[in-house]
Amino acid sequence: MAATLNIRPATPADVPHILAFIRELAEYEREPDAVHATEGDLFRDGFGPSKRFHCLIAELDSAPIGFALYFHNYSTWRGHTGIHIEDLYVRPAHRGQGIGRALLTHVAAIALSEGCPRLQWDVLEWNTPAIGFYERMGATMLMEWRTMRVSGEALRSLGSAGAPSR
Amino acid sequence: MAATLNIRPATPADVPHILAFIRELAEYEREPDAVHATEGDLFRDGFGPSKRFHCLIAELDSAPIGFALYFHNYSTWRGHTGIHIEDLYVRPAHRGQGIGRALLTHVAAIALSEGCPRLQWDVLEWNTPAIGFYERMGATMLMEWRTMRVSGEALRSLGSAGAPSR
Repeated sequence: MAATLNIRPATPADVPHILAFIRELAEYEREPDAVHATEGDLFRDGFGPSKRFHCLIAELDSAPIGFALYFHNYSTWRGHTGIHIEDLYVRPAHRGQGIGRALLTHVAAIALSEGCPRLQWDVLEWNTPAIGFYERMGATMLMEWRTMRVSGEALRSLGSAGAPSR
Repeated sequence: MAATLNIRPATPADVPHILAFIRELAEYEREPDAVHATEGDLFRDGFGPSKRFHCLIAELDSAPIGFALYFHNYSTWRGHTGIHIEDLYVRPAHRGQGIGRALLTHVAAIALSEGCPRLQWDVLEWNTPAIGFYERMGATMLMEWRTMRVSGEALRSLGSAGAPSR
């Protein structure tokens, strides 16, 4: 009998699974030591009074095997929120069965239901299998744009030169 | 007498200025027809009960001459919100006077006060004056990442294949 795939919103009980997926994805992205998030962080930011992200769980016969984690961005050109997918992950043993596609179409359906004009996410340039997969789903790569970041000591230095007016 | 620079949170009365800045910035970014946002959109999303972005106004002697518009993203590696600056703009006649720097340091100070580990924004690769300016402020370009996007007909097609579970 074929296993049953179900995509559903994450609940607080999924937090240990979500953190495990985040760590597995970071390892795949060649940054195994990059994950500092704790279960407490994910509980607070995903399921507390101030919700900072949304999460869908893919499960096969009720066992979680992948997830999509997203938040809302804002387009000043469109005058509307969009959806940014921060993480999309399916465990290696379950790839090639349409589960990543099911997660992505699910998020796309949520974007449509909210009137969001855009759905986007970042991809590593060397991850050509993922890029091919996304392009087959109708996505295009934004070739003109790059992301700039300030963090750590540089952020402390920059921020201590300004005073927040709140 | 030197003009007085003030950076302050935007109010609903700034909406016409904000939309004018968004249009001027789109023109500079060679996308003059890209702006579909209306004053109603900006009022709803910036100053309504469901706040989708935050905005700072730079003014010289009480006249608005630039802005920074940002929202919160989420890092699953850090387990914390960060700040993404969607737009940073100073009118051409007022550039080279440290106003862009003042806006950026102000947002950095807000990021620090909120415990955000990262401040980031996107830049056009051909905009080398901006990139140099940002690098002097301590920012680094994320060279490995590219953004993928689904919108318009492709999003409708992708989303209609999935069912939102909410």
